[in-house]
Amino acid sequence: MKIETLHDLFVHELRDIYYAEKQLVKALPKMEKMATNAKLKKAIGDHHKETIGHVDRLEQIFQLVEVAARGIKCEAMDGLLAEANETLAEIEDTDVRDAAIIASAQRVEHYEIAAYGTARAFARRLGLNDAADLLTATIDEEGAADKALTKIAESSVNSAAIA
Amino acid sequence: MKIETLHDLFVHELRDIYYAEKQLVKALPKMEKMATNAKLKKAIGDHHKETIGHVDRLEQIFQLVEVAARGIKCEAMDGLLAEANETLAEIEDTDVRDAAIIASAQRVEHYEIAAYGTARAFARRLGLNDAADLLTATIDEEGAADKALTKIAESSVNSAAIA
Repeated sequence: MKIETLHDLFVHELRDIYYAEKQLVKALPKMEKMATNAKLKKAIGDHHKETIGHVDRLEQIFQLVEVAARGIKCEAMDGLLAEANETLAEIEDTDVRDAAIIASAQRVEHYEIAAYGTARAFARRLGLNDAADLLTATIDEEGAADKALTKIAESSVNSAAIA
Repeated sequence: MKIETLHDLFVHELRDIYYAEKQLVKALPKMEKMATNAKLKKAIGDHHKETIGHVDRLEQIFQLVEVAARGIKCEAMDGLLAEANETLAEIEDTDVRDAAIIASAQRVEHYEIAAYGTARAFARRLGLNDAADLLTATIDEEGAADKALTKIAESSVNSAAIA
């Protein structure tokens, strides 16, 4: 797809995030299984359900802007997940691994927060207010997921990892 | 390097960011050259200078924790930069390209904010307060760079891209 207008770039952003979210839907259950801290396991499981909802919201936005719901390969998310897999595979201590799971998951959350923030700024500029509202709903959940992980890291995982 | 303790994971994080920052030192001048909006060009140039300072701070931290200043391949940053290159190459309209440069740069900033945030949490937990302070100085600059880009996008670049 050639990118000639801000609308094209907006669609490009949506397709990048759509691919990223679909990869994440596949990756999160593996992270959940690998986690040992109960709060962390639950937070990842909850976020997996939310992520399925994010894919659904993106499909609603594709309908609103009348373009095919299609992903485009997002090398950033592929890199994030590949790096997470490799790092986690190197760690045997379950407490240290929990800390590394949080480190990886927060990088993913921040990628999404940046990508969705850009997409929302474009949607607003294009006068696509319904799309912007759907993006805001997801941004709020990504932000809350990130904060929840910080709390779990600081309240239990990082101290267990140092014990 | 085997990751057995939280200290090992902290060093792993530092090496991941060190590689990422060094890649960014090389990538930012290309983005600066490609940008056409004067404020954007200046913001990227300024952040390039800051990024050289971030590499220097990481080297100070490596000295503090007495490990070799060495990077490890960070597939996430490689993916972020590869994706930026590919997207920007597809765009001929300079205003739309400026909007895409900001989109890419903010993804990079958010990656770094997440990575540095994790490293600082580990430093604090390990009682490495001098390292944590150096990381805070960089986190503050990354946050300010991200906010500056949002301002440039909203005040001029995105409206030029829609014109």
